[in-house]
Amino acid sequence: MFHTDPAGPDRAAVDVTAAARWLDGQVVRTPVLRSPAIDRLAGARVLLKAENLQAGGSYKMRGGLYAVSRLAAAGHAGVVAQSTGNHAVAVALAARRYGLAATVVLPVDAAPTKVAQARAAGARVLLVDSDTAERLAVAREISDETGHPIVDAYDHPDVVAGQGSASLELIEEAERAGTPLDALVLPVGGGGGVAGACLAAAGRPIEVYGVEPVGCDSLARSLAAGRPTPVRPVPTIADGLRPSCVGELPFAILRSRLRGVIRVDDEEIAEAFRLLLMELKVLAEPSGAAGLAGALRLATDGALPAAGPGTQRQRTVGVVLTGGNVEAELVARLAAPARLREEVPA
Amino acid sequence: MFHTDPAGPDRAAVDVTAAARWLDGQVVRTPVLRSPAIDRLAGARVLLKAENLQAGGSYKMRGGLYAVSRLAAAGHAGVVAQSTGNHAVAVALAARRYGLAATVVLPVDAAPTKVAQARAAGARVLLVDSDTAERLAVAREISDETGHPIVDAYDHPDVVAGQGSASLELIEEAERAGTPLDALVLPVGGGGGVAGACLAAAGRPIEVYGVEPVGCDSLARSLAAGRPTPVRPVPTIADGLRPSCVGELPFAILRSRLRGVIRVDDEEIAEAFRLLLMELKVLAEPSGAAGLAGALRLATDGALPAAGPGTQRQRTVGVVLTGGNVEAELVARLAAPARLREEVPA
Repeated sequence: MFHTDPAGPDRAAVDVTAAARWLDGQVVRTPVLRSPAIDRLAGARVLLKAENLQAGGSYKMRGGLYAVSRLAAAGHAGVVAQSTGNHAVAVALAARRYGLAATVVLPVDAAPTKVAQARAAGARVLLVDSDTAERLAVAREISDETGHPIVDAYDHPDVVAGQGSASLELIEEAERAGTPLDALVLPVGGGGGVAGACLAAAGRPIEVYGVEPVGCDSLARSLAAGRPTPVRPVPTIADGLRPSCVGELPFAILRSRLRGVIRVDDEEIAEAFRLLLMELKVLAEPSGAAGLAGALRLATDGALPAAGPGTQRQRTVGVVLTGGNVEAELVARLAAPARLREEVPA
Repeated sequence: MFHTDPAGPDRAAVDVTAAARWLDGQVVRTPVLRSPAIDRLAGARVLLKAENLQAGGSYKMRGGLYAVSRLAAAGHAGVVAQSTGNHAVAVALAARRYGLAATVVLPVDAAPTKVAQARAAGARVLLVDSDTAERLAVAREISDETGHPIVDAYDHPDVVAGQGSASLELIEEAERAGTPLDALVLPVGGGGGVAGACLAAAGRPIEVYGVEPVGCDSLARSLAAGRPTPVRPVPTIADGLRPSCVGELPFAILRSRLRGVIRVDDEEIAEAFRLLLMELKVLAEPSGAAGLAGALRLATDGALPAAGPGTQRQRTVGVVLTGGNVEAELVARLAAPARLREEVPA
C-alpha cells in the first residue's frame, strides 16, 4: 500500500546482521535491564532492551541512520520522511550528521517534544493531517519536487534492518548471559521494528509477538485478512502506534514469521509505563512501554511459550522499550498515584 | 563521632579495588549514560553512572552487600543498621541473600518506598526520630541486646569501599573510552560514597567534589572546622542527604583528598531531576540527582577543572546518580511542566 517499489517488497534485501555490524559504534549500545518486580509480575525473566536511552530517544535512530548513510553515500543531497514522530527525529538527526537537507512530515497532533526535536536537528518540519495516507502524499510531492528520496518509516529494507539490530543485540546478549530468549515482544506501528525482530530471531526457537493498542490494530486485521488492511486509528496515549496501515514490506515478513498480535488498552499501557518508571527507573513513552504491556498480558493469559531445551529453566522474555520521547505533562499525569490521578490536570 | 572503633578510623582498611573485584557479578554493572542536552548545559562531556538502576535502587547495595557478606562469612547471625533509607534497604536485601536477620532503624519521615522495600526484604523496621544520633543510639541498643553487629551507613571501611566501587567502574570505563575524567561529582549524606570516590580516584588527576543541599552541609562545615561538625538539617527534597553529621572515617579520607563542596538548593536539585528524567530518560531520586545539580553549578561558576594532557580535548565530568527510590507523588509533582507545577497536589 505504501510501498514505492513496483517490483514489490524485497525481503532478501533486509539484512539485519549487516545493519547491526554497520551500526555498531554509530549508535548507543543500549543496556539490557531487569527488575525483580517486573519478573514477579510476569512469572518469567524479563529482559528489557532500553532503546528509550538511544540517541534521539528511540530505536528509530538505527533505521534512520542506516538508511540515510546509504543515501548520502549514493550522492543524494537531501531526504524526505513522514512519521508519527520518532522516525522524523531520527531522519532529521541522521541528515544533519551527513550534511543532507531533511524535510519531515508529521501529524498536526504529533507529540510536541518530537516536533521540537526534529526542528532542533535542522529539519524542515511540515505538520499535516493526522492520516498516514495524506502525510505520505505530501511527502511524495516534496520528493518529486526536490528529487530527494523518501526514507519510509517502515516500508524500507534499510529501516527494517536497522530497527531489527536492536532485537539482534538483545537476542545475542541474552544468549551470552546463558538465558536465551523464549519470546520477544515489540510494539507495532507500521510494523518495521517487529519485522526486523522476526528476521533477527530467524533460525532460533524464539516466538515473536507484536503489540497493538485496541483500535489501532492494522497488523492483527491484516494478518486475518491476508493482506495489508488499514484502520481508522482511535485515540490512544501510544501516539507512535497510530499509523493507519502496516507497511507492505513488514507485512510480507510478518505474515509467515510472527507468532501473534497482542492487543492492549491504554490502562495496560499506562500501568507498564508506571512499572518501567517506578521499578525499572527508566522513562519510556507510552508507545515504548506497550511491549511490556503486551508481555504482561501474555503472562496473565498463560500464553508465554514453554522454556526451551533444559526443561527446568525459567522462561525468558525479551522486550524492546522502543522509545522515550514523551511530554512532561503526560509523565506527571501518568506517574501520579491512583488516588491523585484524577486531580492532575490532563 | 559515630565511629565505633576506639582505635579510630583505619583508612588503610578501605580497599576499593578489592571491593570492586568482589562485587563484580554480585551487583548490577550499571551503564554509563550521556545526554547531548546535559553536555550542552555543562559545556563539557558529562558521564553519568546510573546507580539508580542498581539492585535495591541505589549504590548503597554495593557497600551493604560487601559488608554483610564479610559479616556472614565471620559467622554472624544478624546485622543492625540505621539510615535515612537506602542503606537500610541495601542491608535488608543483603541480609536476606545471606540468610541473616536484619534490624534497620529509619527516621519517622523516611520515604515510604524505602520503608516498604526494607520490610519487603524481610527486615525488622524501626521508625524513630529523624535525628541521626537518636537513630544510632537505638541501633546500638539493639546491637548490644542481640549481639548482631552494626553495619554503619558510612563509618565502616567495607561500606566506603563498596560505595567507592561505583566510582571506580565509572573512572575505568571513561579511561577505556578514551575520555578520562577531569572531575568526579557525588552527593554527600554521611560522606561514605564521596570518600570512596576519592580513594577510587587516588593516583589519577581527577578533582573530586561533594554536593550538599543548602542547610545540610555538615561536610562543608566540618572541612572548615577541621573536625566532624554536626548540623541540624533543614528540610530538603533530597531525603537521603540529611544525616546530621559526616562520618569520622569519611571525614578522615575527605579532609586531604576532596577538591571542594558544592552547595545546591532544592530548585537546582529539582531541575537536575527533570533533566535526568526528560533528557536522559532515567528516574533518579532527588538525592541521586544532586550530583548533577552540583556539576551544573560547577559549570555555571566556571569552576570545572581544565582538561588534562592534550589541551584541546573537551573536559569530562563524571557524576554518580546514586539512587532512584522516590515516591510516585513526588515524581508527578517534580515532572510537571512549570506552568502546571503549582496545581499539582503536593
